[in-house]
Amino acid sequence: MSLLLTGIAELVTNDRSVGDGSQLGLVRDAAVVVTDAAIAWIGPSSAAPPCDRRRDLGGRAVVPGFVDSHAHLVFAGERSAEFAARMAGVPYDGGGIATTVAATRAADDDELRRLLASRVAEMRAQGTTTVEVKSGYGLTVADEQRALRLAGEVTSETTYLGGHVVPPGVAREDYVALVTGEMLAACAPHARWIDVFCEPASPHAFTGEEAEAILLAGRGAGLGLRVHGNQLARGPGVALAVALGAASVDHCTHLARADVDALAGSATVATLLPGVEFSTRSPYPDARRLLDAGATLALATDCNPGTCFTTSMPFVIALAVRDLGMTPAEALWAATAGGARALCRDDVGVLRPGARADLTVLDAPNHVHLAYRCGVPLARALEL
Amino acid sequence: MSLLLTGIAELVTNDRSVGDGSQLGLVRDAAVVVTDAAIAWIGPSSAAPPCDRRRDLGGRAVVPGFVDSHAHLVFAGERSAEFAARMAGVPYDGGGIATTVAATRAADDDELRRLLASRVAEMRAQGTTTVEVKSGYGLTVADEQRALRLAGEVTSETTYLGGHVVPPGVAREDYVALVTGEMLAACAPHARWIDVFCEPASPHAFTGEEAEAILLAGRGAGLGLRVHGNQLARGPGVALAVALGAASVDHCTHLARADVDALAGSATVATLLPGVEFSTRSPYPDARRLLDAGATLALATDCNPGTCFTTSMPFVIALAVRDLGMTPAEALWAATAGGARALCRDDVGVLRPGARADLTVLDAPNHVHLAYRCGVPLARALEL
Repeated sequence: MSLLLTGIAELVTNDRSVGDGSQLGLVRDAAVVVTDAAIAWIGPSSAAPPCDRRRDLGGRAVVPGFVDSHAHLVFAGERSAEFAARMAGVPYDGGGIATTVAATRAADDDELRRLLASRVAEMRAQGTTTVEVKSGYGLTVADEQRALRLAGEVTSETTYLGGHVVPPGVAREDYVALVTGEMLAACAPHARWIDVFCEPASPHAFTGEEAEAILLAGRGAGLGLRVHGNQLARGPGVALAVALGAASVDHCTHLARADVDALAGSATVATLLPGVEFSTRSPYPDARRLLDAGATLALATDCNPGTCFTTSMPFVIALAVRDLGMTPAEALWAATAGGARALCRDDVGVLRPGARADLTVLDAPNHVHLAYRCGVPLARALEL
Repeated sequence: MSLLLTGIAELVTNDRSVGDGSQLGLVRDAAVVVTDAAIAWIGPSSAAPPCDRRRDLGGRAVVPGFVDSHAHLVFAGERSAEFAARMAGVPYDGGGIATTVAATRAADDDELRRLLASRVAEMRAQGTTTVEVKSGYGLTVADEQRALRLAGEVTSETTYLGGHVVPPGVAREDYVALVTGEMLAACAPHARWIDVFCEPASPHAFTGEEAEAILLAGRGAGLGLRVHGNQLARGPGVALAVALGAASVDHCTHLARADVDALAGSATVATLLPGVEFSTRSPYPDARRLLDAGATLALATDCNPGTCFTTSMPFVIALAVRDLGMTPAEALWAATAGGARALCRDDVGVLRPGARADLTVLDAPNHVHLAYRCGVPLARALEL
């Protein structure tokens, strides 16, 4: 069964070889043919081939489904009181994670599964079609493994984040040994990636040396590498990620010149998470500086109950345009193709024959509306 | 027919005489009885009376429907290219309004009616149940009258804004004479309010003297008074609004000490529109200073195609909490009861027996989530 989609005022392909030849590969008055959940053909509607079915999208814009490459979705409880306190002036240092760990451990599988499914559905309703899901609120062998097992039910992009924080009451050395030993062995079969919160400025997170040990152990177990780095202050996270060839280093809020140069000269994606700076009232990362240096950027939500409980990629795009110095086109690319790069995927984040038919429809005539109409739920994943 | 609503984890009434006695009048584990589209009873679910029908809201929070007291919804066309240019550094001075005026004049009634209805529906889907609608993109007698006639089909809160900008090619004195003469006579039967863009810093808007003449003429025609004031720079707008006893003065971004004192000592509501500062990358108004002085605040979208094309009151609330120094409770009050004050309404913005049953349901256990989960479409007007 082939499906012809017409009435697309603007199609964003992220393929420079088609359309206007820009980074977004814009095709005006476009049509798309979908066969077996994959893109079969893209072109001007005047040249569309005959198909079994046909759907008119009414002059809307269509973009690749958002790729949210950084999300913490396996948790129970909420921390709105902590958010309100922070807005009234209480600073964030990562300590509130323990609240979520306690609630998550106490929840049974069905409750976690229900919460996870509702969050993925909330994302999809806002246009996100690929999401990475991290563990990191279990922090015991059994609880981390459980989080990854449940995450694997909703995505192939599962990330072992035993190295999220050192749990209260556990000695640092003992916990690093656990994360690199027994916990890793239990979790690796359920994960594609390993990640670590490398942030010497936080007493709860990990130093550069600890983070390196965790990442090397993960690599030894066959996992790809990701890093939370340079969120709260300058530190060793970015340099470590680049040195180890991590797929992505995330946050990148406080960078030294050497960090920018390292990112520009590497294949490691810098994933920016401006919803965190919004929700913690913190200084934003400087996307312009990174782009001008030649780094590859992704945008993601960091959806989590402490520092940024948003599932909205359009909101993240709007922040990137207003506060990070990105153009609407750069922001959309980073939220789609950039996220795909950060996950080493070439079947998503781009619309071309052979790619997945992950299409997001905007109630708008062009992609600029994602930032122009901030707060309005314009985007939704197209159900085929 | 009476309808019993249960499963309300938190009910915001804006009535200090019930619940926790706070400004929001919070009732936990609440129930509401609705009869003939009005509130008949509010109380704890354990004390709910029997009703003809019953609906369980599943542990969600319920708040008064948002009252968006400042919106420019009668227009055609869009200005996403101007937005993108502004984000790239081009300053805003009000001149782009002419683009929308041309597109609006060129649209026929059915097209304007369709666009207006879609915007009101978009608002309702995000929890707004009362909206004020201004003219101001016609700027001829016939086009302003038409805008108000169409606005009156969707709301009783219609505002004559012939004094939006001086149209290109028309002498200022001639235009003020038209706005206070023939245009007013044609528009007053279709409007409840008159408004004027008093902003000497903009060459397109009106001076204090011109604004005063326009407002006095409107009052003479039986209209209530509203003012756009102090958006781009300090100026005479706020003082004029207070002196004339306007219901509201809107923007209030650049205030002298005397402006703050005048607002604090008056019944004129200061309506803040932080979506504009977000979308124009401008300094935010200082809500904290106004609240601490004793002024009454409202929050509204200012939905318009130039400086803020959002319909989302939750987004405005989140900005107020992050960037204006308001608590989540103060922001929600301003977006509901405050908006009602700005429109001199006592049947909306509050939930108590006799008020309209304008209920907005949040996919969240409490109202703090409106800011805590910024960007996520949590709010929707309840269809009874």
